[in-house]
Amino acid sequence: MTTQLLGTSFIGFSRSTGTETCGNGIQPGTGTVLEPAYMCATPDEVERALALASAAFPAYSNLPGKTRAEFLRAIATEIEVSVDDIVERGQLETALPEPRLRGETGRTTGQLRMFAALLDEGSWVDARVDRAQPDRAPLPKADHRSMLRPVGPVAVFCASNFPLAFSVAGGDTASALAAGCPVVVVAHSSHPGVAEIVGAAVIRAAKATGMPEGVFSLLYGGGRKVGQAVVKHPAIQAVGFTGSRGGGTALMDTAAKRPQPIPVYAEMSSVNPVVITSGALARGEEALAEAFFGSLTLGVGQFCTNPGLVFLPEDAGDAFLAKLKILVEAGTPGMMLNSGICKAFADSTAAFAAVDGVETLARSATEAGPGQGAPSVFTVSLADFLKSEELQGEMFGPATLIVRGSLADIEAAIPKLEGQLTASIHATEEELASNSGLITALQNRAGRIIFNGFPTGVEVCNSIVHGGPFPATSDGRSTSVGTQAIFRFTRPVAWQSFPDSALPAELQDANPLGIKRMES
Amino acid sequence: MTTQLLGTSFIGFSRSTGTETCGNGIQPGTGTVLEPAYMCATPDEVERALALASAAFPAYSNLPGKTRAEFLRAIATEIEVSVDDIVERGQLETALPEPRLRGETGRTTGQLRMFAALLDEGSWVDARVDRAQPDRAPLPKADHRSMLRPVGPVAVFCASNFPLAFSVAGGDTASALAAGCPVVVVAHSSHPGVAEIVGAAVIRAAKATGMPEGVFSLLYGGGRKVGQAVVKHPAIQAVGFTGSRGGGTALMDTAAKRPQPIPVYAEMSSVNPVVITSGALARGEEALAEAFFGSLTLGVGQFCTNPGLVFLPEDAGDAFLAKLKILVEAGTPGMMLNSGICKAFADSTAAFAAVDGVETLARSATEAGPGQGAPSVFTVSLADFLKSEELQGEMFGPATLIVRGSLADIEAAIPKLEGQLTASIHATEEELASNSGLITALQNRAGRIIFNGFPTGVEVCNSIVHGGPFPATSDGRSTSVGTQAIFRFTRPVAWQSFPDSALPAELQDANPLGIKRMES
Repeated sequence: MTTQLLGTSFIGFSRSTGTETCGNGIQPGTGTVLEPAYMCATPDEVERALALASAAFPAYSNLPGKTRAEFLRAIATEIEVSVDDIVERGQLETALPEPRLRGETGRTTGQLRMFAALLDEGSWVDARVDRAQPDRAPLPKADHRSMLRPVGPVAVFCASNFPLAFSVAGGDTASALAAGCPVVVVAHSSHPGVAEIVGAAVIRAAKATGMPEGVFSLLYGGGRKVGQAVVKHPAIQAVGFTGSRGGGTALMDTAAKRPQPIPVYAEMSSVNPVVITSGALARGEEALAEAFFGSLTLGVGQFCTNPGLVFLPEDAGDAFLAKLKILVEAGTPGMMLNSGICKAFADSTAAFAAVDGVETLARSATEAGPGQGAPSVFTVSLADFLKSEELQGEMFGPATLIVRGSLADIEAAIPKLEGQLTASIHATEEELASNSGLITALQNRAGRIIFNGFPTGVEVCNSIVHGGPFPATSDGRSTSVGTQAIFRFTRPVAWQSFPDSALPAELQDANPLGIKRMES
Repeated sequence: MTTQLLGTSFIGFSRSTGTETCGNGIQPGTGTVLEPAYMCATPDEVERALALASAAFPAYSNLPGKTRAEFLRAIATEIEVSVDDIVERGQLETALPEPRLRGETGRTTGQLRMFAALLDEGSWVDARVDRAQPDRAPLPKADHRSMLRPVGPVAVFCASNFPLAFSVAGGDTASALAAGCPVVVVAHSSHPGVAEIVGAAVIRAAKATGMPEGVFSLLYGGGRKVGQAVVKHPAIQAVGFTGSRGGGTALMDTAAKRPQPIPVYAEMSSVNPVVITSGALARGEEALAEAFFGSLTLGVGQFCTNPGLVFLPEDAGDAFLAKLKILVEAGTPGMMLNSGICKAFADSTAAFAAVDGVETLARSATEAGPGQGAPSVFTVSLADFLKSEELQGEMFGPATLIVRGSLADIEAAIPKLEGQLTASIHATEEELASNSGLITALQNRAGRIIFNGFPTGVEVCNSIVHGGPFPATSDGRSTSVGTQAIFRFTRPVAWQSFPDSALPAELQDANPLGIKRMES
């Protein structure tokens, strides 16, 4: 490790002097306590981080997009400088294997550079120019111009299951900084050391590119204590969160009860239904089972897009199930991210197995060791599925529920599902064409619909939607992945009758940035 | 009147059979009770309206944009057929003069046609196409395409102060219908007859253009009783509201407490600060006072954008105040929209006058008659203003508070203001250039900033922003006026690996609609 871990928060460009510990990193499985102990930010330090963010906002938000882009690229570069430290510490804290940690670091730096490119290009602000019509009758029209502007300082909560791509400098932070919002990050207890390494990289980048102090702070102290204080603080104007439904709805409650309610973007809970038709089965049941098993067990099932619910014809699919049974029984348990997730997975699979009508199709033949999660597959009839709200819940791990019914009954059941991040359909093109009602139903329940594929493996691009109706997210009008994530931290502002020189460059008459605009 | 008023709700294409009255229209000032009595929609009828909206959503949301545009244009035409009835009944119910009612009807039909044109052009959906890269290393990229889709049925509350432009077929309804959302309108007790005339026009248009039943319903029964039931109903996916802070925050509470929380777009409360510099005064204090008085008293001050707060130099502006005093004293009281607004105006102006340090500069010399509101102007020092939160409240009517301080102190005070719909600055271009901190502060507190103008008179166009940080609106990321209002009722949806023929036309490879897209 070239990074020396201090175990303290970043309060703007200073380090915390708090002395109350909020815990150490813990190695999953072994329970080994990792040094150093992490210290809670004190209430004064939390206040100072937020005051700095508030003070930084006017200057940071008015920087040219290209200058913010340099900052984002510098963060990416500084993270790459520390990648070996991230991998070393990450394996200890999260049990994620080195290739995953390197890959996720690459995704993180890729996201930062994607937003930098978006800022360089500049058209994302949705600039609109309505020129004055002084001679219009009966009333003259004044000059109006609008564009998206940042909302203000943003609180970002690190995710347990993405120590990089949805943590300190992950998608929420990258999109908020890109929008022009200072960010106050609340670290996750699952990977405090990785957070500190990345936090140090962000601070180096901020200093190197001349950003105002307060553009970034990183606080230790956990979601309940420090996190709630941050969300309640009047300086904060929006919240980004990826985690459990309980954690997300608690933040929603807090945000709604503020004197000034603010938006919370919580990505929380999804079982990502997969509909398999008889036509898809006819193409090869065993190959389909293998592909499904691969998606189900990827990352020990700890992805928001894990396929936790499958609709299968009641009169077909026996070979699919037989193959899946073989795969699951031969599947090896995997180390989970932390003991809390491991226990929740054991509890939820046990609860599913106990519901009336649910049968256990298969479990891994290998006993799960300490901290591990073992693949499991349950089956239930559509009628029994609809009787139990519990069966719509998420088993966060490598487990799925297979529901068997007729395609007509499945179509009727889809609108009764909670909101989802994704919905997939495996079918022939002919079935797709003749079941438009089913496709519409899936589309109206999810943020992303997938044809002949599985939901894991989220492509970071302009058209990805990683969002969906509640409880998939707190706010289904948004995505937390891809360039559209920037819109979460913006609001439109209009300038009326301002002289050209007093307008932002994006709105000036000559369009000096050469961006795409809506003009009239 | 050619429209026969029945006093009953529109439950899809049927009429309510409720027999419990929720009141008649009342003529402001005289208190004359207008026939007919209006009947509450029964709980069963509310349920049926929402079930119809829910059932209509899949079909309506999948109609081509051009088909929805025909519906919107048909509504505009049918409203024009009834304009004389609207004017006749509107004068009785609201005391608004004929030119205002004709003008507002024109704005309403104009808005409907503006959204129709937006749909015809089609690019508003923000279509994004990321084509597959099957040869990409290390992983192939699947085809991803996204666009904005409607959220589902929307509840719209009629506004007391805009019986047409923000009521049955006003901006909220027009933008929701344009987005592809069925609408359930809750009528306002201030103008039930106008609501019925416009509701009948919408139903005629829906039938004539072959829209599914349930695309529109209009319910009587008031916000508390019927309105709360509508907002609580699981079918509803978003809410549009223009009205008081109390009414708006009550809806926000209800929406946040649903098992599935939903967005509320409430446009509530704004005092629309106006900063006047010494440079602006030097151009002519009396003319400025006249222009300000015109904005203050327009529509008896009952506009969301009424200038209720003015920052004036402490060492200049005596002639401005002297002229304003003359105008206010000579100003005649105007009939207000209803007795509730009239009483609230009297109460709030009395409360302002009683705050420490507040002085009454002028009141209309003419005593206000029953139902009337009289122009009033108060003054206070900046120091005393900052001591009282109460002075940030809205006096909904022709009254304003003038706060005197130095420009530096005014700049420091702006961030302490609540969120606003608008902020205006009267200054020279030189002052504008040398006070960028003040401009940034105004910009960060409001949705629209205005140079050398007053906030009343909202231009309906692509770049208007009629929104702003709480409590100006519940959700400062949005505007309720202009084409951008459509975004409130949408969410992005992505299609992954779908065959071209199964994609919406907006996303098909050949771009058959010829819309602007982001492609890669």
